[in-house]
Parts: sequence; structure tokens; C-alpha cells
Amino acid sequence: MQQTYRLVIDCPDQVGLVASVSQFLASHNASIVEASHHTDLQTGRFFMRHEIGADSLKLDHESFVEAFTPLASEYQMNWKFTASSKKQRVALLASLESHCLVDLLHRWHTGELHCDIPVIIGNHPQMKQFADWYKVPFHWVDFKALGKDAAFAQISTLLDEYKIDLTVLARFMQILPDSLCQQLAGKAINIHHSFLPSFAGAKPYQQAYDRGVKLIGATCHYVTKDLDEGPIIEQSVKRISHSDSAADMVRKGKDCEVTALAHGVRYHLEDRVIIHRNKTVVFA
Amino acid sequence: MQQTYRLVIDCPDQVGLVASVSQFLASHNASIVEASHHTDLQTGRFFMRHEIGADSLKLDHESFVEAFTPLASEYQMNWKFTASSKKQRVALLASLESHCLVDLLHRWHTGELHCDIPVIIGNHPQMKQFADWYKVPFHWVDFKALGKDAAFAQISTLLDEYKIDLTVLARFMQILPDSLCQQLAGKAINIHHSFLPSFAGAKPYQQAYDRGVKLIGATCHYVTKDLDEGPIIEQSVKRISHSDSAADMVRKGKDCEVTALAHGVRYHLEDRVIIHRNKTVVFA
Amino acid sequence: MQQTYRLVIDCPDQVGLVASVSQFLASHNASIVEASHHTDLQTGRFFMRHEIGADSLKLDHESFVEAFTPLASEYQMNWKFTASSKKQRVALLASLESHCLVDLLHRWHTGELHCDIPVIIGNHPQMKQFADWYKVPFHWVDFKALGKDAAFAQISTLLDEYKIDLTVLARFMQILPDSLCQQLAGKAINIHHSFLPSFAGAKPYQQAYDRGVKLIGATCHYVTKDLDEGPIIEQSVKRISHSDSAADMVRKGKDCEVTALAHGVRYHLEDRVIIHRNKTVVFA
Amino acid sequence: MQQTYRLVIDCPDQVGLVASVSQFLASHNASIVEASHHTDLQTGRFFMRHEIGADSLKLDHESFVEAFTPLASEYQMNWKFTASSKKQRVALLASLESHCLVDLLHRWHTGELHCDIPVIIGNHPQMKQFADWYKVPFHWVDFKALGKDAAFAQISTLLDEYKIDLTVLARFMQILPDSLCQQLAGKAINIHHSFLPSFAGAKPYQQAYDRGVKLIGATCHYVTKDLDEGPIIEQSVKRISHSDSAADMVRKGKDCEVTALAHGVRYHLEDRVIIHRNKTVVFA
Repeated sequence: MQQTYRLVIDCPDQVGLVASVSQFLASHNASIVEASHHTDLQTGRFFMRHEIGADSLKLDHESFVEAFTPLASEYQMNWKFTASSKKQRVALLASLESHCLVDLLHRWHTGELHCDIPVIIGNHPQMKQFADWYKVPFHWVDFKALGKDAAFAQISTLLDEYKIDLTVLARFMQILPDSLCQQLAGKAINIHHSFLPSFAGAKPYQQAYDRGVKLIGATCHYVTKDLDEGPIIEQSVKRISHSDSAADMVRKGKDCEVTALAHGVRYHLEDRVIIHRNKTVVFA
Repeated sequence: MQQTYRLVIDCPDQVGLVASVSQFLASHNASIVEASHHTDLQTGRFFMRHEIGADSLKLDHESFVEAFTPLASEYQMNWKFTASSKKQRVALLASLESHCLVDLLHRWHTGELHCDIPVIIGNHPQMKQFADWYKVPFHWVDFKALGKDAAFAQISTLLDEYKIDLTVLARFMQILPDSLCQQLAGKAINIHHSFLPSFAGAKPYQQAYDRGVKLIGATCHYVTKDLDEGPIIEQSVKRISHSDSAADMVRKGKDCEVTALAHGVRYHLEDRVIIHRNKTVVFA
Repeated sequence: MQQTYRLVIDCPDQVGLVASVSQFLASHNASIVEASHHTDLQTGRFFMRHEIGADSLKLDHESFVEAFTPLASEYQMNWKFTASSKKQRVALLASLESHCLVDLLHRWHTGELHCDIPVIIGNHPQMKQFADWYKVPFHWVDFKALGKDAAFAQISTLLDEYKIDLTVLARFMQILPDSLCQQLAGKAINIHHSFLPSFAGAKPYQQAYDRGVKLIGATCHYVTKDLDEGPIIEQSVKRISHSDSAADMVRKGKDCEVTALAHGVRYHLEDRVIIHRNKTVVFA
Repeated sequence: MQQTYRLVIDCPDQVGLVASVSQFLASHNASIVEASHHTDLQTGRFFMRHEIGADSLKLDHESFVEAFTPLASEYQMNWKFTASSKKQRVALLASLESHCLVDLLHRWHTGELHCDIPVIIGNHPQMKQFADWYKVPFHWVDFKALGKDAAFAQISTLLDEYKIDLTVLARFMQILPDSLCQQLAGKAINIHHSFLPSFAGAKPYQQAYDRGVKLIGATCHYVTKDLDEGPIIEQSVKRISHSDSAADMVRKGKDCEVTALAHGVRYHLEDRVIIHRNKTVVFA
């Protein structure tokens, strides 16, 4: 796979902005593999992502950052400049359902998800068997024995110790405390097993069954302190009918959950997502 | 098109039920073009629809009904026996948006929707031009001049005068009064421009834009007195992204609205929908 | 609707290209509403589309073209600079099926398709009724009476007389002669009622029925002299099952045809499509 | 999970057939969990599947078969009567790509696929690691060392020894010889990585890339001696764009392959598929 840098920017829109950035990139010989722009005409905010062939660039990472900083300040940018060679460190949190966990592990194992997975954390011990096969350390945090506060304190410590960049709740059936949500803002992704905002909260497939909808879905979103209210990255749906029981919906919905989460995590890892207020720009 | 009869049944499930009905049909030489069954295992209710070649049947409509009634009573059936040759009379209600109205009219004109459309009712006069082309009487019910109560009284009278079997709210932007909802129970279909239960009520595309969902949709459902809460017949969705404004969503959503409504109306006209509590069985 | 200009470019990729274009735009105060880039890494070709707020630009159309020409030459660009205010002139060609024709006319009537439709041409007279309602001149070119060569000569003359920019074959069931295909290269769009390259040629739904596929589709593509082989703009599919007859497929496929064609035509009219060899870049 | 029997029938259609079968079932107290019917009006063939609560039936499996045989003969039925408790024995054949293999194994492990998997066969040794984890014997058949004929002879022997009911080619990149195809007729399922009949044969994603299609797909079908021409069970598609390289298509296509194959295998295992000529009836 070609090594690239990613320059991701959001800032107030103004004439000359793209020219300045493009001029900067060209002056350092950047060969642009992929470029995406978006202007939010309502808020006047501009979003831009460049993927640059690493070989072409005449600056190393540090020098680029130093050289770009004045321009970034001038345009009041939120920005980052990342190297595809530097893998993010991802923690997977799971409970008893294995489908999302195993899917992510397999995509990671085959190189589709370009990251490190240094730890898997379960509030039950059952997922250890999968962690073992993939040779990832597994920590069982016993919520029953510890109580919720101590359990989450332990998780928070683990995330620190493993220097985690991204926390993925792969059907982790515990609601994170506000403080942890804030600490992980923009760095924790959840999969909810409904087409949000429909059927937030508990037992969404049963809710969907009771309402008699004709499509079910799943939503991949950033975790915020308001349950199931965070910025949505990806959604997936599947047709059902009257002949599907709530159990059938659970089974069919898994395929939605798996793909929506896998897409969302990949977009995040490739720096394709920019959070703006409670929404996302996804340069898919 | 082949003439058929449709025998549609729902009743408590029990062993021998299908055998009795099948035996009855066979004894009158019914050639079955299409047969659909569903057992709701939660409630123990059974649903069945047979479409029968009209030529094969050794009974006329009236005789069939008379002959079948004892069996229907024995099994406590809700049932109907309809002839495809007998077209339902459909009223279309519209406001200012023409896409659903024109789509239904065109499908009717080309024979895809097998019904009569004796009247179109608007709370604005603009849709008259389309009604004229299709040579359907148009009534403008002036809500502003009449006030809501008198206006709906006039609509109710029109539905009576035209002997309407099915009322279709083709983006009719007025909320029906409870009394009319009850009077039209199971005989009025609405299209709501969101993926219900998400974004019920006013301005669903703006709601969807504000929430930042990645798919938008439309829901075709029976009208009940609880707004946007009636039994769902059909839903349709379409992928969107951050680059879609609320206006883009309105445009893209129209394609969802048009197909969801057209499907729902066709299913109803072909007696493919059975309402059970607040849900539907749709033998599509 | 906001007036915009569209600058659409394709050329060999090289470092500095985007900077030069952006710098040019900024120097004339262009406020960029939408920007799309694509690099074809296999062929080293670069594609770019800018949509610019017309009010912001300090040059009129003619001056812009003059000023930009040297840059375009330097980078060996294929390019165009169009104004959204200048509507393309579209001819619709149809036969006996009305669904695509009526759909396009309705989208045009409601302003979704921003173009002029000065003429409709039929190889049968039946579509005149729709043309009349929309007050568009209708020409019946009688293929039986004239023979194919004379008939197409007449069509060619009509396209000239009406100064047609885009010819849309809205289920026009006649194969264009090679000479006309070449004359209309990149300016004629067809809808084929299958998911190409499956089921090219005649009776695609019957072919699909015979093969027993589980999805049917439609393909919107540019017309070339190789039948159903031109660059694809848009495709649409729909799930079917064993219970669908070939006639059911025809009915269900119409919804695919209508949306694929409407999308393809809109993309073309908004200068969102760039043809490259036998493929398209579509900045949707 | 509730134990059930499945009675699956296809035979020439005639009046009284359903009545006779229903009467037979009722007379033995069969409680019908799910019933599906289809009449192919073109060929006059009738298809029927009943799923029966095992507890309700007053006959054991053997007695049922004996009692039903006369009726089956009378109506010239192809039929089978299977018990959900009796798991089919499935062999998985794979090469170097693990996504379909691992997906099937995981669905089997979690009980979604109700079968035994006594053996995995690879023409390369790499998949052994997954087989080991799931504790399934793995046989590496070395095509290079053995030559194609001897290799397939060995596979045929393995299928016999393990008493295999269903052979699944989970991206097994070897073309089965005609004799083996015939031997496994209706008992071998393949996943082809295109939307058949488009892009049969080798490198379908490259073919799709070259043609410039806007959707890619996968097809699950029974193996026949005509490559990629067998009866289709399930198809799945996914939208792509000009920005997707052939490698992107490979990655995106995997999700289609995985779900199409998983669905197809489940339908087969639950006796939901009836092959008729070169097509399938799938009571999904």
C-alpha cells in the first residue's frame, strides 16, 4: 500500500483559502492522490481533506507541520496532518455478542483496517477466546463484582495504559458515564442496533417489531453523554416483512451492524470524518 | 389481464383450518394463481390470501359468499371475497406538491393501478391542471375561507357523494380530524416524508438535516387519529451525505415518497394488506 | 435558485495544477459553492469541477473564458465554463412507453430539471397527448412510412432545427445509425432496461426472467455506435423473486428506469459528468 | 429453537392438490409454523414448503414418510420431509481469501447456520489457522504437486469419507471437473464475485472496473458444469463510483460476497430452495 499523508482542515470559508493551501502543497511538490472539499453554506464553514503521496513531499512530517502552522493560524483552521504509516491504537469493547468484534478483528487481521489493536475489554469473559486467537490481550472488567464506577475507572485506566487513540464499542452493552464520554469526545465510536433516531435506548429490535416497520437498520456514531444522540458516521438498513419475528430481526440486523460499524471505523482511521457541531462530514 | 377473485382471511390459528379452506376451494374447482399464508406465532393469529382464476370457479361471487359463510363463522374469520373486475373508487387529496399526485395518476392512466379515480380534492387550486388533463373532476376545498371544520365536512361529503372506497393523501398537508380518521379507518392511506418513527410531524427533511442522518426515507401508512402512528404498509430509503442540503433532501426524498406510496396503494387495491392491531401483514 | 458558473476540467495530472486553478479563481474573487476533484491513478488523468457563485465573480462569462484560456493551454485542458442561467435545449425521443417521458416532463415542469425542452419526437403518434399538455411541439416521425434512413434523416434535421444540445432516448425503441451516434457523441443519453452489461439488446426483462436473476436493473448511458456499450452514467437495481413473472419485472423495472434516467440527465445538465475513454467521472 | 419438520414439494399443478396435502397434515395434527406456495404459471409447476411444529405431529419421521408416499405418487411429486434436528454435513472449500470462510464459520459457531462442518479443504495451506481455531479438520489438497485430476479425485474421496451433504465453495479458486459437478448436482454452492450474468469467469472486479459500472455485486448459485451458469439462489449489490479503484471494488465486493453466500447457504440448509430447470424457487 502506498504511504500517504493526510491533511484535514476545517475553518471559516473565505475566498483564497483553497488557493493558499494548494499553493502551499504545490510549493512542496505534494502529489495529491485524493482531494475532497465541502462548504457548509448554512454555517459558512469549509472542510477539506487531502491525501498526499508521501514520496512526493519534499518535507518530513515535523517540517510540514512547522511550515504549515502560520497558514493554519491565518485562516483559523482546525487541522491535522497525519501519516498513513502511523497506525492508530484501537481498543475494542464487547459484551456477549461476538459478531461485530469478530468482524473487526478479521478486517484488521487481513489488513483492511489499518490500525493496531493492543487490547480487548469485555464486561463478560466470553470474548476472550476470540482475543486469544488473534493474540490480543483481553481484560475482563467484572462490572458485577466491581460496581459500575470502579469498573469504568478500570476501563479508563486501561485505555490510558494502552495509549488508546480510538475506543470502539462493538456492542458493548454498558452506558458510559458522562465523564468518560467527555474524556473520549470524538475518539469513541458506538454501534447502535437501530436506524437512529428511531428506537434509541434498549431493545431496539423489539421496538421495531412492535411498531411494525418495514426496514430495520443500524447506526454508527460517536459517543456523547446523551445516549444514542452523538454525531452519526454511517447508517445501514435492510428490508424486513411481517413474517420476521423479533428474533429474525436480531439476526438480519447483525449484518447491518457489522457493515455500518466497519465502515465507520475505517472512515475514522483514515481521517475521513470531521465532526462539526452534532453532525459529521464524511469524505468516504 | 386475467380476472381473479381474492379470498382474504384472518382468524385464530388452529389445526385443520387450511385444510378446510383448501377443501372448500377445491370442491368448487378453484384454480389458485397465488396463495400466501402467515401465522403470527406471538398472537396465534392466522392470515391467508388466495388469488383464484375467475374462470375456474364453479360459483359466482354471490354464491361463493353464501357457501363460504358457514365455514367463516365456524373459524371466527374476518374475511372478504373480492373480484379483480370490480374496481375500487379512489379519491386523491393533494395540496401544492404534485409529484405523488401525478405519479399515481400516471400509473392509473397506464393501467398499473387498477382502480377508478372519480375525484381529486385540493386544499389549494393548483392541482386542477393535472386533474383536467386526466379528466378527473377536481374540487378545491378552500380551507382559508371555510375554516378547518367546515372544510373537512365538505371533504367528508365529497367522499360520500363519490362513493369512495379508498382515500389517498398524496402529500395532503392537512391533519384529518379524529372523527374523519375513525370514519375512514383502514380506508385512508397517507405518505409521510420520513422514515417513521423518525421525524414524525412537521418538516421531516429539516429534522433529518438537523440530526445529520445518512439515509432519508418515506413511509406509507394507514391514517389513524394519532398523527403518523398508523399501521405501516411500506417504507423506502435513500442514501444521502453531508453534501446534501435540506433542499437536496427534499428533492431526493420525493423519489422515496413516490415509490412508497405507489406500492402501498397498489397493495391495498389488490387486497394484499391485512391490518392487525397497529401493524400490517403485506402479501406483496 | 442561486446563479452559478461551472468550470469543468480534465487534463494530465501534475503538481501545481490545482494551485494554479485555485489561484486564478481566487484572484477573480470566485466564491466556490462546490468543488470536486478526481485523479485517475491508472491513467494519470485529473478531473475537476468547480461551481462558483455568479455574484462573487469579478468577470463576466466571456472575460473569464478569455482570461482562463492561457492557463488551460498550458495544462492541455479539456474544459468548459458554463452558466447555470443558460439552459441546455433537450429533445426527448420516445416510442409507446410513457413512463420515462412523463417523468422527465414532470421533473422539468416542477423545475427539478433545469433545461428547455423545445421538442418531443416519437416514432409513434401516441405520446403527442403528453407533449400537448406540457405545450411542447411533438413530431411524429413515421418509421414505417419513411423507412429507417429517411426517418433518421428527419430526426437529425429536427435536432438541428431546434438547436438541440442534448438528445434523450426515453425508451426510444429504435437503434440509431452509426453516423448519428457519432454526430451526437457525448450529447445523447439512453436508458437501457437492464443492469448492463447483463442483458444487452432486445427484451432484457425476458432475458432476466429466463436466467432467473434475483435483482433487475436499469442503466443510463451515453449513446455510442456499439449498442448498449457506451459510457455508463448511472445504474439502479431492485430486488425480485421467483414469484415475479416477466410482466412483473417489466412493471418493477420501470421504477429503476425512471430514476436512473432522471439522475443521469440531471447530472449531465449540471455538467457533473466527464467522459473519459469509455467510462464516466460523475461528480454527483 | 423449536424443532420442526419441513415438507417440501414440487409437482404438476392441479385443483385439489393443496387440499389433499393440507387434509393429510391436519389429519395428523400438524401445526403449521410457516407455509409457502408458488405456482409457475408458465410451466404449470407447483411448489410448496411447510414447516411443521415437531411436537404437534402425531407421526414420527419414518411413519410420516410411509403414510405420505401414496399421496406423493398420486400427484407425481418430487418431495422431501426433513427434520430440523438432523443437521446437514457441510464441507467448506477455500483458497487464499478468508472472508467468506471465516464468516460462515462464525455464523456456524454462533448457531445462525444450523449444520455440522466436519471438514475444510484448501488448495493452499493458509486457511488451516482458522480451521484450527474452530476445531474443524483441515485438508490441504496440493493441486500443484498432485495435478488437477488427482487433486479433485482426492477432494471427491474426502467428501465421501466425511459423508458430506453440501459442498460450499467459499471463494475456492478452482474450476470443478464436469464429473464432480454432476455428482454434486444441487448439493454444491458457489459464490461468484460479480452480479451474474455480468462478468462471469476470471477477475470480475477488474472487468467491472474496465466497463465502468456504477454498482458491483456477488452471486450465490448452484454449481453446474457450465461455469457461472448454474441456478442463482441469491444476489447482492453495492454502489460504487469513479473514485473506486479495482482494489476498492475488491474490498467493497467482499461484503456482498459474504452476505450473498451466507444467505444462500442458510436457505439451502433450511430446505428453502427448490431447483426448477435452471432457476430456483426460494421461500426466504
